[in-house]
Amino acid sequence: MDSVREICYKARQASYDLAMCDAQAKNRALQAIADRIEADADEILRANALDLQQASEIGSAMQDRLRLTPQRIAAMAQGVREVAQLPDPVGTVVREFTRPNGLRIRKVRVPFGVIGVIYEARPNVTADVAALCLKSGNCVVLRGGKEAIHSNRALARIVAQGLVDGGLRAECVGFIDDTTRESSYELLRQGEYVDVVIPRGGDGLKHFVTEHATMPVIASAGGNCHLYVEKSADPDIAKRVIYNAKMSRPSVCNALEQLLVDREIAPTFLPDMLETLHRDGCKVAGCERTREIVPFVETASEQDYATEHHDYELTVKIVDGCDEAIDRINRYNTKHSDGILSRDQALIDKFTRKVDAACVYVNASTRFTDGFEFGFGAEIAISTQKLHARGPLGLEQLTSEKYVICGDGQVRE
Amino acid sequence: MDSVREICYKARQASYDLAMCDAQAKNRALQAIADRIEADADEILRANALDLQQASEIGSAMQDRLRLTPQRIAAMAQGVREVAQLPDPVGTVVREFTRPNGLRIRKVRVPFGVIGVIYEARPNVTADVAALCLKSGNCVVLRGGKEAIHSNRALARIVAQGLVDGGLRAECVGFIDDTTRESSYELLRQGEYVDVVIPRGGDGLKHFVTEHATMPVIASAGGNCHLYVEKSADPDIAKRVIYNAKMSRPSVCNALEQLLVDREIAPTFLPDMLETLHRDGCKVAGCERTREIVPFVETASEQDYATEHHDYELTVKIVDGCDEAIDRINRYNTKHSDGILSRDQALIDKFTRKVDAACVYVNASTRFTDGFEFGFGAEIAISTQKLHARGPLGLEQLTSEKYVICGDGQVRE
Repeated sequence: MDSVREICYKARQASYDLAMCDAQAKNRALQAIADRIEADADEILRANALDLQQASEIGSAMQDRLRLTPQRIAAMAQGVREVAQLPDPVGTVVREFTRPNGLRIRKVRVPFGVIGVIYEARPNVTADVAALCLKSGNCVVLRGGKEAIHSNRALARIVAQGLVDGGLRAECVGFIDDTTRESSYELLRQGEYVDVVIPRGGDGLKHFVTEHATMPVIASAGGNCHLYVEKSADPDIAKRVIYNAKMSRPSVCNALEQLLVDREIAPTFLPDMLETLHRDGCKVAGCERTREIVPFVETASEQDYATEHHDYELTVKIVDGCDEAIDRINRYNTKHSDGILSRDQALIDKFTRKVDAACVYVNASTRFTDGFEFGFGAEIAISTQKLHARGPLGLEQLTSEKYVICGDGQVRE
Repeated sequence: MDSVREICYKARQASYDLAMCDAQAKNRALQAIADRIEADADEILRANALDLQQASEIGSAMQDRLRLTPQRIAAMAQGVREVAQLPDPVGTVVREFTRPNGLRIRKVRVPFGVIGVIYEARPNVTADVAALCLKSGNCVVLRGGKEAIHSNRALARIVAQGLVDGGLRAECVGFIDDTTRESSYELLRQGEYVDVVIPRGGDGLKHFVTEHATMPVIASAGGNCHLYVEKSADPDIAKRVIYNAKMSRPSVCNALEQLLVDREIAPTFLPDMLETLHRDGCKVAGCERTREIVPFVETASEQDYATEHHDYELTVKIVDGCDEAIDRINRYNTKHSDGILSRDQALIDKFTRKVDAACVYVNASTRFTDGFEFGFGAEIAISTQKLHARGPLGLEQLTSEKYVICGDGQVRE
């Protein structure tokens, strides 16, 4: 078995040819991978059964994340085909201009080269990530978690076979068949061969990667998402948006966690809003002023305001106005998705300019932070850092740019 | 004196207001800073004299980098005024579209917030960097080297005064008045308050920053720049371009270091080319095949091919064709600036696609990699990493983007 370093080196070598491939060649390989996933579904299911057996002592939520079914495998293959349908970002001329001395400068979209992805639990990531990286012209080195090792191993073999079937080199998708901490650490030391690393998982993984990576990281944090009900808000819109943001799928990163309400509107708005949420199974904790208005609300701790509950739980805080709301959001948010409910354009403008987040919403649910909802298609993660790309990381965000400067003998004075 | 953490915290607090400033307010502060630099030139010169005195034992090249003169101070003030003239990137709508559900999505250019800059030697960096960060709406925390501490301290005081004169908060430009290694380390731990860090200096500094930073880094490496003379090259153009790239200013990062020549053209091209360079004071080392053609060439070591000479020195290697040239460049370059001299369009296309560098040149000198030469104006550095920005880091590259999503009550199914 190749060492981590060898896998990365081979991916780097393969990356120069992959960067030259046109969309057709890449799509052919993606189709072949999808076909192969379908053809070898039984093998994937058998491998997955081993993972589930090994995971018998962990909770049912974790088991559900691990579990593959014939339907989920079909969806995985379909996902790969959908990536083939997306436009190829590579080679796009982003900008083009001619200097007074006649130099023609083009800024062209190019692949990064090699992307490292360290991920946890879900085995479908193996196929999704491989497809997105390939389509954006990048080789990828995958290092999955130990919970899904049998499934990941089977999928990696299938993807490699699909690559060869489709006319590309198997080394385009490297797989580290070692789930020790050392293998992650070793991958993070390969700055010479790996251009960018993307962690997909919890905060622990993110910190480990940020701490040890010798190459740039694209980090995604969880979403401690806020909505602020400003006093001019349309109460019906506010109610609908908040209900959707909290209740439609509380386990995901774009779900609402923190509700801020202007003190002027709180007495009329909060009772009905919180009773509806409570009735439908949502735990509500809040500040003292909230509890004076809605007695069943529990006392929120300072920690609650900084917590991504990931569940049917909401923290409520009454604020004195837009400035306090903005200050609190910038203090407690994870730079993911935050919004305002308001009809006051001046305050909306202030809020959207000052709130520091990848996605700032006005009168809409935070649940829209998603590659498909934005119309970009599949994404590899939601970036919450400010460098390179913020928000959904789709194909375009998996590329870099370079300048190509053409002359006819120009020299500098 | 504030601790590093306090300086960063104050810059973070100031950053929310600075992000709201329009171009006029920022330009007013820049003008005031430029005025103040001119008015207090004597104070700067006195401080600089202390640095020079302290540096009396170091070499004259280093002394020259440290030295400020009335002319250099005037140029510094002029540089700040020129940044005021550049267009403000903040608030630009990069992309705008409406989704089928009526959500209007805008991608808007926004400041990072707080930029940390760790730099060495040249005191003019204090004013240059402060101006570029301010104009792009960013607060900055500066940590300069010990060689220039007196000059930097004086300039930081002057910039702070200029900010206040111009109506902004002094905290917009934080200055760490501590040149111990610990103060750099401490700055790199402030990921909570500092969004991005930019090292400006040698490889040692870059590695220290990459190793310890808890926030994203924009790194610039030196330039081990290559030119490849393909066999169809126009010899006159090739000669002019190579001479300019090597000889016009060998100490800078976009100067030529490595010359690759196709074996077919080498016997006719090399003798005259290398004799001209040699005659004008350039040391030439090369491979055995080069030495067979031009006997005065010294033997190049493997290390020479990877070395940025920073001086009147060139390494020459004869290659068997474009593929070998590309392979060598991708192996030895620092992803800065590399070029081809050729009239064969198919090979030019292959070269520009496969060579992995911020700037790939065709029939032009590598010396053009520069913010002014590209028409972008002043730059903070040349980025050689692939994440976020490659090539000259001007005002636009000192910003991030965010999505602002406006609706009228949209919720997700």
